[in-house]
Amino acid sequence: MTNKTSRRAFLRGAAAVGAGAATVGAAAAQTPDPLITKVQPWASELGDGVDAVRYGLPIEFEGDVVRRNVEWLTADTISSINFTPIHALDGTITPQGCAFERHHSGAIELRKEDYRLMINGLVDRPLVFSYADLERFPRENHVYFCECAANTGMEWAGAQLNGAQFTHGMIHNMEYTGVSLRTLLEEAGLDTAGDLSDKWVFVEGADASSNGRSIPMDKALDDVLVAFKANGEALRKEHGYPVRLVVPGWEGNMWIKWIRRIEVMDGPVESREETSKYTDTLADGVSRKWTWAMDAKSVVTSPSPQSPIKHGKGPLVITGLAWTGNGAITRVDVSKDGGKTWETARLAKPGEKMAMTRFYLDTDWDGSEMLLQSRAMDDTGYVQPTKAQLREVRGLNSIYHNNCIQTWLVRENGEAENVEVS
Amino acid sequence: MTNKTSRRAFLRGAAAVGAGAATVGAAAAQTPDPLITKVQPWASELGDGVDAVRYGLPIEFEGDVVRRNVEWLTADTISSINFTPIHALDGTITPQGCAFERHHSGAIELRKEDYRLMINGLVDRPLVFSYADLERFPRENHVYFCECAANTGMEWAGAQLNGAQFTHGMIHNMEYTGVSLRTLLEEAGLDTAGDLSDKWVFVEGADASSNGRSIPMDKALDDVLVAFKANGEALRKEHGYPVRLVVPGWEGNMWIKWIRRIEVMDGPVESREETSKYTDTLADGVSRKWTWAMDAKSVVTSPSPQSPIKHGKGPLVITGLAWTGNGAITRVDVSKDGGKTWETARLAKPGEKMAMTRFYLDTDWDGSEMLLQSRAMDDTGYVQPTKAQLREVRGLNSIYHNNCIQTWLVRENGEAENVEVS
Repeated sequence: MTNKTSRRAFLRGAAAVGAGAATVGAAAAQTPDPLITKVQPWASELGDGVDAVRYGLPIEFEGDVVRRNVEWLTADTISSINFTPIHALDGTITPQGCAFERHHSGAIELRKEDYRLMINGLVDRPLVFSYADLERFPRENHVYFCECAANTGMEWAGAQLNGAQFTHGMIHNMEYTGVSLRTLLEEAGLDTAGDLSDKWVFVEGADASSNGRSIPMDKALDDVLVAFKANGEALRKEHGYPVRLVVPGWEGNMWIKWIRRIEVMDGPVESREETSKYTDTLADGVSRKWTWAMDAKSVVTSPSPQSPIKHGKGPLVITGLAWTGNGAITRVDVSKDGGKTWETARLAKPGEKMAMTRFYLDTDWDGSEMLLQSRAMDDTGYVQPTKAQLREVRGLNSIYHNNCIQTWLVRENGEAENVEVS
Repeated sequence: MTNKTSRRAFLRGAAAVGAGAATVGAAAAQTPDPLITKVQPWASELGDGVDAVRYGLPIEFEGDVVRRNVEWLTADTISSINFTPIHALDGTITPQGCAFERHHSGAIELRKEDYRLMINGLVDRPLVFSYADLERFPRENHVYFCECAANTGMEWAGAQLNGAQFTHGMIHNMEYTGVSLRTLLEEAGLDTAGDLSDKWVFVEGADASSNGRSIPMDKALDDVLVAFKANGEALRKEHGYPVRLVVPGWEGNMWIKWIRRIEVMDGPVESREETSKYTDTLADGVSRKWTWAMDAKSVVTSPSPQSPIKHGKGPLVITGLAWTGNGAITRVDVSKDGGKTWETARLAKPGEKMAMTRFYLDTDWDGSEMLLQSRAMDDTGYVQPTKAQLREVRGLNSIYHNNCIQTWLVRENGEAENVEVS
């Protein structure tokens, strides 16, 4: 189809457009729309003044676009997660105010004045940095996604949570500003020209969980940031104020919040967070470890269970997000029939390394049931697998790293549901 | 200087580092830092749980990073402006919560259900779109800056407001999602293949001011968006919820908020907002009109009056923002001596069309007074002028379109002040 022709032909039939696009002439004369024909209060009265001194919030009508937790998921919110309302967002940036949180012992309050970052271990000159010290090193800006390894984890057991926010909302995508970890390690006297292939850093946070993780030196020196701003402003408390680690493309658990210490070591620590947790138990009961990178993945955010089609058949924008921790997204396909046939979606921008990509399929819905899927591909040649393909390799014992193709059943009435297709 | 050598040499002298970077061994043993040696409450107690259902706000310690108005600037906040705290931001994205506002008759509350957009005038099929209709057309995502024509306007009369927030804060930079105006005009039957060089659109908002502006058809068909999201989420009320016009690179007054009507016309309306306002009166009393594009401009955001140097001499990050409404920023130079000598700054990313660019100069401050300036260049070959150069061409009668080089006097104690250099 050509979209233009379809849309124009469609909109000509004014009656067919549920929500109101109509030819102004005849159609409007027949059924006058008071919103057009009558002066409205907002056009004849004064609105609110500018904020004198204030940080703004969304308009009350958008009160549903908030992060939400799932009560039964954890015993307490102190060690829990909530989810980004990705079903209601567009573009690629996630505002900090609705970007998912995950804490292991709660979000702590740590003043910049009280902040210290120690670099110790196998370095020439162990150092302690204050926040003000960090601000004196060269900074970088990058948009990166941060995805919890457990994102979509419930889906191992079949179609569970009903809504893109809950199946895929443990992710956000923000513009980070910080200092490269390489710079700070060099400051501490690490000889980055030498052979460091067997060296690791162990990173831990200032919260009670400390959430320690080992990172191989190659990655630590590649693109890891010690970051203090997200989307231009200070990190929010729940995102690690004043300083967090940014580990592009790798599982969110490694993005240590309130980071307090970086130790250069001869090997990994094999801490709780990288052994009993954040490993992937295979069918034979053996657990894979060091599965850091988040493989290519995508999801249709609208239509979806929380974002049904309300306008009936005709022109429909299908949209979603794609990302890969192994490089950049190169292509996203969309299927309406549960993976039998595919159409290539339009990427809003060329994929960028370790950042979310917005895709659109501008289509014409005939009003019949759809099994909506999306399938991401990245510049390594990797193709996002089906749920069946993933289970074949990984079994059913996993919690983490579920990047399978998601299916939404869209009914004739426009409502959508999380389903599995065989 | 090589930054690495300078920083390392500097930090070796632990005593010289006011805020605390020190060699952990000897130095820390001599003056133990309780923040390192003692277990802190945030490391031994639980923090806050995740938000069950909430939209987050910045941590209390960042309470100063808010938009602010200037009381004496206008008689009432209903028709006033407030300023983005650019002195405290980094990277390029402006969060909506602190992005400047400008209203002509206050910010109105307009539900999506009550929203209508009319396209009429010289089109084959005048149309009225509901919000839901707009969502059915192909969408685009772009990061664009929006600058009020009056930004820096007080500086025509000499160094006035003390702080980058107030001299340059009538600007924000957000990722917009919307439908191209071209698409909607074509939907209304405008033949965009024909000769439209003498055609204009007149655009107006749903608020009491209506704030009508004329836009030549070439621009209307080029890159103008009818936008409904900024930084991923719905536009805030104060930014035109639910729908505003985005006119990349052109003065913010044309970015009609709560847009309700787009009329295709044979010529411009010459409305109040483009005659008695938003024109530039020259030395001879004659006013220039149709000065839509915002010329290349930059400002050092830190150090600056609201962001003094607190750490004494040594490694210093000088940073700021640059933008141009005529294309992309290609280079920014920084001067420490009021424009006598210049160093080329590092751009965090290559400049993008009509979007803000972050620049950094990683330098070594000898502790002496500086006259800090930045000078932007764009891909048209344009170079940001000095205040003297601008006054020579424009005289002193202007309010709008002041894109001159800004000077901050940084004193030996690190405090900064808005000054003029001859």
